[in-house]
Amino acid sequence: MLIEVLPSTGYQRMPYLEDRLVIVIDVLRATSTIVTALANGCQAIIPALTPEEALEKRLTLPGSLLGGERDSLIIEGFDLGNSPFDYVPEKVGGRRVIMTTTNGTRAIRDSIAAPIIWMASFVNMQSIVLAVLREFENNHRLQGIVVYCAGTEERFDLPDILCAGMFIDALGSEIMLNDLGEAALMLYRSLEDHLLEAIRNSVHGKRLMSLGLERDIIYCSTPNILPVVPVVQDGEIVWLTGE
Amino acid sequence: MLIEVLPSTGYQRMPYLEDRLVIVIDVLRATSTIVTALANGCQAIIPALTPEEALEKRLTLPGSLLGGERDSLIIEGFDLGNSPFDYVPEKVGGRRVIMTTTNGTRAIRDSIAAPIIWMASFVNMQSIVLAVLREFENNHRLQGIVVYCAGTEERFDLPDILCAGMFIDALGSEIMLNDLGEAALMLYRSLEDHLLEAIRNSVHGKRLMSLGLERDIIYCSTPNILPVVPVVQDGEIVWLTGE
Repeated sequence: MLIEVLPSTGYQRMPYLEDRLVIVIDVLRATSTIVTALANGCQAIIPALTPEEALEKRLTLPGSLLGGERDSLIIEGFDLGNSPFDYVPEKVGGRRVIMTTTNGTRAIRDSIAAPIIWMASFVNMQSIVLAVLREFENNHRLQGIVVYCAGTEERFDLPDILCAGMFIDALGSEIMLNDLGEAALMLYRSLEDHLLEAIRNSVHGKRLMSLGLERDIIYCSTPNILPVVPVVQDGEIVWLTGE
Repeated sequence: MLIEVLPSTGYQRMPYLEDRLVIVIDVLRATSTIVTALANGCQAIIPALTPEEALEKRLTLPGSLLGGERDSLIIEGFDLGNSPFDYVPEKVGGRRVIMTTTNGTRAIRDSIAAPIIWMASFVNMQSIVLAVLREFENNHRLQGIVVYCAGTEERFDLPDILCAGMFIDALGSEIMLNDLGEAALMLYRSLEDHLLEAIRNSVHGKRLMSLGLERDIIYCSTPNILPVVPVVQDGEIVWLTGE
């Protein structure tokens, strides 16, 4: 199985996706928050590229909430920020959330040519790995996986790459990797006993620390705590059926 | 000193370069070949984005040679390919070479807003490090370094990142790094005793191996054999004065 890892959004061209399973990773914090929202009963998340697009979408979806961030902070007039701790059952249970984040939402929208798009973070890693193995056993049209790290403002982001490395490490043998996949695996294996420290010391980690969001970093760096595989279906992100 | 490492060409936006020293790295093979050409007496290298642009430039530069590659092979009608072994003194001594390569030339052209653009590879690493230390001692307008890895076809390339890591490692202390800089340093330190093996096993390395170009890989992976710092001056790449 071929696994290609992409470092960030902002590329002028995407690889061929028509027979690939895409896994979008945005550890700090979009995919961690999406997994958490679904685990807490959120009905669906609708990605939007801009706050304006989010506001427009809400006109057609009465009762839905607005969530997301710009520069790591909640957007004025929105109901929820980008912290997983905003997405508690009392707020998101049974409701749709229209969500716009700088990097995560863009990565999802870039991947739209792929037949399958899932979302991963440390928090749901084990569920993702099991679902991937099951999918490749049953779906013989798939030719490989693209791990699309959302990055931070179009830049390589160490937390996302470490998460990609954990995914590759867990998948085990008989895989072929592009150079960034090899690098991700090596970096993960070097740092797996110090994940939290490495994530806290990343550029994005430091920015969240300076905003007093250490609690978010600790949460988003914790592996295998939620059994959710978020999947893009008809433009919405929902809990994968059968999981 | 702040060092930012970029993974490849193909980004939609470049970082701020006006007060930065840019170091372009394309280990396999453009910057290795440029260093070699200058060491062998080549008067200047003129980067061109396309073969057509190279042919056009030659009309105004009679006596110059055409060099470069597409898909790792020499371009039809050109005098030289992209192998450092093509750029021997008998061919390039005292002459200009108009050169187009897939990734390296693009990186040079992307960096044009920077006041200083140098070219590095393993082969001239020590000279680059010494020149950087001297430049920052004397030039107080410089605020940092951008290490622009050319990558392979707009993708992260392990040989370039390992070379960036060696550069960071050699610069020593009192540096601030972006996430890819941290990753490059860690990867270099993990692999420094197995550089050739890692480069041979990279995607680009394997492609060159399949074309019978192992000799090029071995040469391009050899640190500190040439005392050349190539610099961009008035659109040409020449040997840095005073080196």
